[in-house]
Amino acid sequence: MHFSFFILTVFITINEDIAISSFQFTKKRKAMPHNYYNRENHGDYEIISIGDFTLAEGGVIPNLELAVRKIGELNADKSNAIFVTTWFSGTTKIMEDVYVGKEHALNPEKYCIILVNQIGNGLSTSPWNADESIKGPKFPKVRIEDDVKAQYKLLTEHFGIPYLQLVVGGSMGAQQTFEWTVRYPDYVKRAAPIAGYAKNSEHDFIFTRTLIDTILIDPAFKDGNYDSIDSMKTALSRHADIWNVMGYHPEMYRQEAYKALGFDNADDFSKQFTWKYFEPMDPNTLLTCAWKWQRGDVSRNTNGDLSAALGRVKAKLFSMPIETDMFFKLEDCKSEQELIPNSEWRPIKTIWGHLALFGMDPNYIVQIDKNLNELLAYDL
Amino acid sequence: MHFSFFILTVFITINEDIAISSFQFTKKRKAMPHNYYNRENHGDYEIISIGDFTLAEGGVIPNLELAVRKIGELNADKSNAIFVTTWFSGTTKIMEDVYVGKEHALNPEKYCIILVNQIGNGLSTSPWNADESIKGPKFPKVRIEDDVKAQYKLLTEHFGIPYLQLVVGGSMGAQQTFEWTVRYPDYVKRAAPIAGYAKNSEHDFIFTRTLIDTILIDPAFKDGNYDSIDSMKTALSRHADIWNVMGYHPEMYRQEAYKALGFDNADDFSKQFTWKYFEPMDPNTLLTCAWKWQRGDVSRNTNGDLSAALGRVKAKLFSMPIETDMFFKLEDCKSEQELIPNSEWRPIKTIWGHLALFGMDPNYIVQIDKNLNELLAYDL
Repeated sequence: MHFSFFILTVFITINEDIAISSFQFTKKRKAMPHNYYNRENHGDYEIISIGDFTLAEGGVIPNLELAVRKIGELNADKSNAIFVTTWFSGTTKIMEDVYVGKEHALNPEKYCIILVNQIGNGLSTSPWNADESIKGPKFPKVRIEDDVKAQYKLLTEHFGIPYLQLVVGGSMGAQQTFEWTVRYPDYVKRAAPIAGYAKNSEHDFIFTRTLIDTILIDPAFKDGNYDSIDSMKTALSRHADIWNVMGYHPEMYRQEAYKALGFDNADDFSKQFTWKYFEPMDPNTLLTCAWKWQRGDVSRNTNGDLSAALGRVKAKLFSMPIETDMFFKLEDCKSEQELIPNSEWRPIKTIWGHLALFGMDPNYIVQIDKNLNELLAYDL
Repeated sequence: MHFSFFILTVFITINEDIAISSFQFTKKRKAMPHNYYNRENHGDYEIISIGDFTLAEGGVIPNLELAVRKIGELNADKSNAIFVTTWFSGTTKIMEDVYVGKEHALNPEKYCIILVNQIGNGLSTSPWNADESIKGPKFPKVRIEDDVKAQYKLLTEHFGIPYLQLVVGGSMGAQQTFEWTVRYPDYVKRAAPIAGYAKNSEHDFIFTRTLIDTILIDPAFKDGNYDSIDSMKTALSRHADIWNVMGYHPEMYRQEAYKALGFDNADDFSKQFTWKYFEPMDPNTLLTCAWKWQRGDVSRNTNGDLSAALGRVKAKLFSMPIETDMFFKLEDCKSEQELIPNSEWRPIKTIWGHLALFGMDPNYIVQIDKNLNELLAYDL
């Protein structure tokens, strides 16, 4: 009983269409080598190799495979592509379930929507499924810019897409979105970073450190050579518990909004929802992404000059922080937005905090869609 | 090199008078049985026994000793007493250093200021210094109401004080302050809870759980029978790191306000200040107080009816939450304040978050003093 089950419960409550589409995936079940990172849990995706890939921190991922989900079709001149990134612990599945559909701005009847799982997230090449030479704790350090370079290669060489109508993503997906606009300014017409920074903050770095330490500190971790995911269950529940504190805003608890998801009290919600979400995940996978998250910084493109980096963004950009986010804060997002020439300030109202990204608050996705529809309507 | 050193650094920056008074304590050094919980670190205090003490959760503390600091003198009719409580991890020392003095509202030339260390905080009867029958992990569960009952006994029977002009305290000290106003409404003329709840929130309960788990999860903890404080150093630094995330507001990091305290960057501040503050503390002591903190709830006086509990407060009360507090939130504090008949809403502005309580922001104590002066000026 893992997160998809709970997400499903959520969707049954808030969106019957999505619930039905989620059920359909169970019919496509295939035998997979991992209990969690498989198509039953994470929907349909195509594995596309982009070859050996050299990383910013040094080292090579041999035969880097990206797990890619394409929804909708490219038009004749391939001018209708939208690119969607993923966040920490998430895959393309939740992006598809919450953000994509004919009832959403990300409408596959109009656009070809390409969703790519970030490197090391469990579906694309990751510690558990990598070549023996970089398996498990030997997996190299990956940066946000590595993801974006790999994604650029995929979109230009594999798909032959000339430019993107939109790049959109939340949290670490926002980090990738910002990197896209700075690294490939001519390739991105529009951008919508949701709840994330162009350059990570010191506070967020320390928050992520506390998440990392819940794993490192457990004797069962054995420097990344743990016996099984199950042996790391306690560590993963501790990891999840910090998310319970920082991922949701206290106002969500005060209003007992978790009751709308079918949980009687905060203790039940915190354990049956958040703990169960993280408990089946691979710790090395989480560590790979956490290291990357901590160091997201577009100013690496401009020798540390954030103003210069954001100054070269050409995309029409809507900055969409979540007002109650406990770690990607409004003030920091505003400072960054003010450095981006063609940008607008579009904060999202919700009491849920950062993990409103999951779509539990029906009014959250309404606001996202409204902003994305407006952004996509700009004639650029 | 522990917290007093750093607090000292802070005070040298913001208040020379206090720095000098702190230095004077080093002249009074006595041989003490604990490396941290002693007069060198925590100033002068008197140990007063209030006899065997029966606890709300059952069990007895034999010969409960309270560590009491009295500053100023009682007048003839003992009508000039102010009572000051302590918070999690803190002792009367920081309350004296930051809040008490002739330049403050808590002026010992006018009032007799009595500060009492909460049960289990390391100076009053605590796991490390308790009777062998309840030593270490055998220490019983203590509630906020136990503290307040013990303090009431101390003030009425030992000091013979007929009523208090004011009860004031921050964080767990605010929990005690609220309990005072509900349990002994006729004894408290004025009350000033700073940054705390009358009834703890579900979010705060989980936050405290993450703090507790950093200790419980460490194999060196050995169910509370650790070999030494030093063997728990890693756990205590992890404990401290969660404080780095939740104790200060991200805006403090964004503005790099820690630089005013002499730290070059957040990493340095987080480790040299916050880690060093917690590393010498006794884990069983922290656990005793954390359990108590989680369960603070004045509605235990009224069969769970918070409105009825707060409705019986007779004190003139100023509610003083910290606007940027990450866990004792403004919205929750406002809900509670609105249930208290003779109360006023006095939120404190600072970018520091909860640990502004420590006094690093000079403008924080200015606001506290202004409010307390106004509160004390009410003719009641």
